[in-house]
Amino acid sequence: MGNNLLKGKKGIIFGALNKDSIAWKTALQAHEDGAEFVLTNAPIAMRMGEINELAKMCNAEVIPADATSIEDLTNLFEKSMEILGGKLDFVLHSIGMSPNVRKGREYGDLNYDWFLKTLDISGLSFHKVLQTAEKTEAMNEWGSILALTYIAAQRTFPDYGDMAQAKAVLESIARSYGARFAKINKVRVNTISQSPTMTTAGSGVGGFDVFLDYAHKLSPLGNASAEDCAKYIVMMFSDYTRMVTMQNLMHDGGFSSSGITDEIIGELTK
Amino acid sequence: MGNNLLKGKKGIIFGALNKDSIAWKTALQAHEDGAEFVLTNAPIAMRMGEINELAKMCNAEVIPADATSIEDLTNLFEKSMEILGGKLDFVLHSIGMSPNVRKGREYGDLNYDWFLKTLDISGLSFHKVLQTAEKTEAMNEWGSILALTYIAAQRTFPDYGDMAQAKAVLESIARSYGARFAKINKVRVNTISQSPTMTTAGSGVGGFDVFLDYAHKLSPLGNASAEDCAKYIVMMFSDYTRMVTMQNLMHDGGFSSSGITDEIIGELTK
Amino acid sequence: MGNNLLKGKKGIIFGALNKDSIAWKTALQAHEDGAEFVLTNAPIAMRMGEINELAKMCNAEVIPADATSIEDLTNLFEKSMEILGGKLDFVLHSIGMSPNVRKGREYGDLNYDWFLKTLDISGLSFHKVLQTAEKTEAMNEWGSILALTYIAAQRTFPDYGDMAQAKAVLESIARSYGARFAKINKVRVNTISQSPTMTTAGSGVGGFDVFLDYAHKLSPLGNASAEDCAKYIVMMFSDYTRMVTMQNLMHDGGFSSSGITDEIIGELTK
Amino acid sequence: MGNNLLKGKKGIIFGALNKDSIAWKTALQAHEDGAEFVLTNAPIAMRMGEINELAKMCNAEVIPADATSIEDLTNLFEKSMEILGGKLDFVLHSIGMSPNVRKGREYGDLNYDWFLKTLDISGLSFHKVLQTAEKTEAMNEWGSILALTYIAAQRTFPDYGDMAQAKAVLESIARSYGARFAKINKVRVNTISQSPTMTTAGSGVGGFDVFLDYAHKLSPLGNASAEDCAKYIVMMFSDYTRMVTMQNLMHDGGFSSSGITDEIIGELTK
Repeated sequence: MGNNLLKGKKGIIFGALNKDSIAWKTALQAHEDGAEFVLTNAPIAMRMGEINELAKMCNAEVIPADATSIEDLTNLFEKSMEILGGKLDFVLHSIGMSPNVRKGREYGDLNYDWFLKTLDISGLSFHKVLQTAEKTEAMNEWGSILALTYIAAQRTFPDYGDMAQAKAVLESIARSYGARFAKINKVRVNTISQSPTMTTAGSGVGGFDVFLDYAHKLSPLGNASAEDCAKYIVMMFSDYTRMVTMQNLMHDGGFSSSGITDEIIGELTK
Repeated sequence: MGNNLLKGKKGIIFGALNKDSIAWKTALQAHEDGAEFVLTNAPIAMRMGEINELAKMCNAEVIPADATSIEDLTNLFEKSMEILGGKLDFVLHSIGMSPNVRKGREYGDLNYDWFLKTLDISGLSFHKVLQTAEKTEAMNEWGSILALTYIAAQRTFPDYGDMAQAKAVLESIARSYGARFAKINKVRVNTISQSPTMTTAGSGVGGFDVFLDYAHKLSPLGNASAEDCAKYIVMMFSDYTRMVTMQNLMHDGGFSSSGITDEIIGELTK
Repeated sequence: MGNNLLKGKKGIIFGALNKDSIAWKTALQAHEDGAEFVLTNAPIAMRMGEINELAKMCNAEVIPADATSIEDLTNLFEKSMEILGGKLDFVLHSIGMSPNVRKGREYGDLNYDWFLKTLDISGLSFHKVLQTAEKTEAMNEWGSILALTYIAAQRTFPDYGDMAQAKAVLESIARSYGARFAKINKVRVNTISQSPTMTTAGSGVGGFDVFLDYAHKLSPLGNASAEDCAKYIVMMFSDYTRMVTMQNLMHDGGFSSSGITDEIIGELTK
Repeated sequence: MGNNLLKGKKGIIFGALNKDSIAWKTALQAHEDGAEFVLTNAPIAMRMGEINELAKMCNAEVIPADATSIEDLTNLFEKSMEILGGKLDFVLHSIGMSPNVRKGREYGDLNYDWFLKTLDISGLSFHKVLQTAEKTEAMNEWGSILALTYIAAQRTFPDYGDMAQAKAVLESIARSYGARFAKINKVRVNTISQSPTMTTAGSGVGGFDVFLDYAHKLSPLGNASAEDCAKYIVMMFSDYTRMVTMQNLMHDGGFSSSGITDEIIGELTK
């Protein structure tokens, strides 16, 4: 159920791959809260994904776009305004991929072309989205732009590899472009640092279950789910949060402020 | 206008002194969003304030309570549950006072009894609220408890005196008690770090205007107003933010992430 | 062995209880590095401690002082300048005690008189040291004042109780007074956030061994020892670090930046 | 003068362009403190620089290396060990360049090939240095590797452009590789976040003087000089700081913890 938080608001949602995706849940929640939006994903991702199913549920159109291509992004923003009949109020960036992680390269043996690819796909793509939004004059006053990130930007998680740097870039872009977009037309830009989430990306990774359980036990409220995150995103798109900008917002059940818990001590005492 | 974000939710709001207060605006916004609540303030503050006027507008009852007195707080929580007909979903702590600042003591010449008073009134009172809420079993599952703070807990502002330490205590209590309350019944505890606001407390302080203007120009979106803050608080009380806990949330138009702006450079180049 | 880093420098070292104390090791290292100093501790602590043994090894005098008493502190600073024949270059504050923790009060059942005591002894005492140093004009230009703290000021550790708030106050005082003392005569004020250390205070606490092992395995370099800390303190007193002020310096083998390690995963996979 | 802090220690210093460079001052200080080292810089930079003059003063050899080239870096590390007769104890990375900033591209009109160049030169080069050091087994136990950074990684400074992202990457690499190198042979990796410094890079930039003055007045101890930074770097290379790793160390006269100062208020009240 929703509260009409996004009634009359229009936007673009990147990265809904399948029903485990945070972007997928966000689309459903935004729809329940009255938003109209365009869904987008990389052409390759779309072939594997079930995005059309989601589009039907949300009464949304789908425009494929490679988020590293300015041409694709320009087309996406222009078409979206046409389809939605006006400028946009929100954008969700939920994109990340590291060839080094995917191909199992150790952090002491990185391929640097791939490292730059990681940064381009997972980090610079956010700048490209923002710059294209500015150049196409796509945003309404008091619009809200969000990207999803992870606490690996602040602390080390061995298996996260060069994605740690990509998230650091992403969060830094939110601050830099946030300062700029505030002045242009009061648009806010933030990142949400979400608990580890069992999505398609996560499942199957060796040791991911152990890690997920650790994060859960170290978080006083437990790991935040994809549904929880979708609700938080919708509230960050709403008019209840207009003056929050250039922030990295922890949505993690308290993980980031937790040094140790009785659950972890219990686990280690076994 | 509201979105029924707090429909069916009950709570207590501390610190509504007059119509400039953030707590006052929060009461109005929470009312518009469907909440029922009790208003409270220190007996002395109430004599000077217009809280009864607010109570009428919100259809709320007023229970005086000295937030440093466990007896008063126990009475407040018990009476509130009686009046509202059930347990609580939210509490706002908006309390702060420093005898040293009030009496103009320099930071190198503090009176230490007063310093402890500052900490007791502005910091420990939050722990007392939380401990009393726990002992009276006043909170519903997934409840939300907030306190208002200021970035002086992280950076120095000469005129803020020992209130900087009080805010550091306050934010630390939110983390410590947040870890505890999460386990008891999934209650979240956070602080909101608000832009400097021209309230009764602020106005008239020498140099406060200059400072307010500086903060405004250093914040890409400008200073957040009391109304903006009220909306953000309501959102943090709603079910859209259940998994956010033990955080200090910057509600400041970007001030905390801004190193310098063209406006400040312009000002300094004059 | 030392490098004459503190040759010609004079100071005061608080809190050397016995040979496990960080302050004890600091005295030894400062002595090796050419410093002259006065040792001090609370009268009660001194009865139990072996501080006179240390004094002999360092060729230092001992002046008892209750760090919550302005009278004692004034006497301490004045006598120290007499004994050492001049103003001071460094001060180490290593003081902490919580009656609530000592008497096993749960965090949801704190005694508030004791809470204020915790803050007074472990937090305000640092302000008293600084204010007395200023009032007695005890510091040379480019002097360095340090206090020892713990990451519980940022993250929750259940057994740390209200000491978390005391450390938050302590770190906040370092910032506030650091801004002031810089202007008076370029004195810097910082805190060092040290790994958990097996001192008299730590040993015997139930579960402390498990916790120490967890911290060790989560820190890529392992827990920093008291000796390591002593060296770091000496360097922060030296002229190699003059422009570092108002900082909380992590001396923790990387704990604060570590999300998880293979060692912890190994432990949890057992 | 020095204190033999680096006696018997060997290292590599990147980025000494001319006598204003922090790397240049570091070389002089490291030499005074007894270190032996190799100087290096990009072949192009060396043509413009006076590095040979420095080399004579420090009794050091110069090996040109493009820090983005693995081949050059491998040669540099291998030759350095030959020349110095053993493994290394320290490395300083002081490299940064943004084509977008240099060519005056606005942050809303970035060239993305250049953005990737900025990240490669100013960020990834640090990873390349670390990975090459690991692969050539160049580091002794308890070695120390440092990179210079700036607070633009945390807060926005309009003229800093995409260098903000490069510094975010750099600091993130220090954490990620620090966790790794600690395990390999107890090498620590940190970044030093230095005050804005009037080097060749800085001078002549429009508005840089105004900014420098602002930073100076907002820093209670004033801006840290290049000489101050050199001393701090030497200390971080010494055995007094062995357990500090994966940290971003503020060397800024207190800027990072200062919200406002009387000097700035005075300036704005004019």
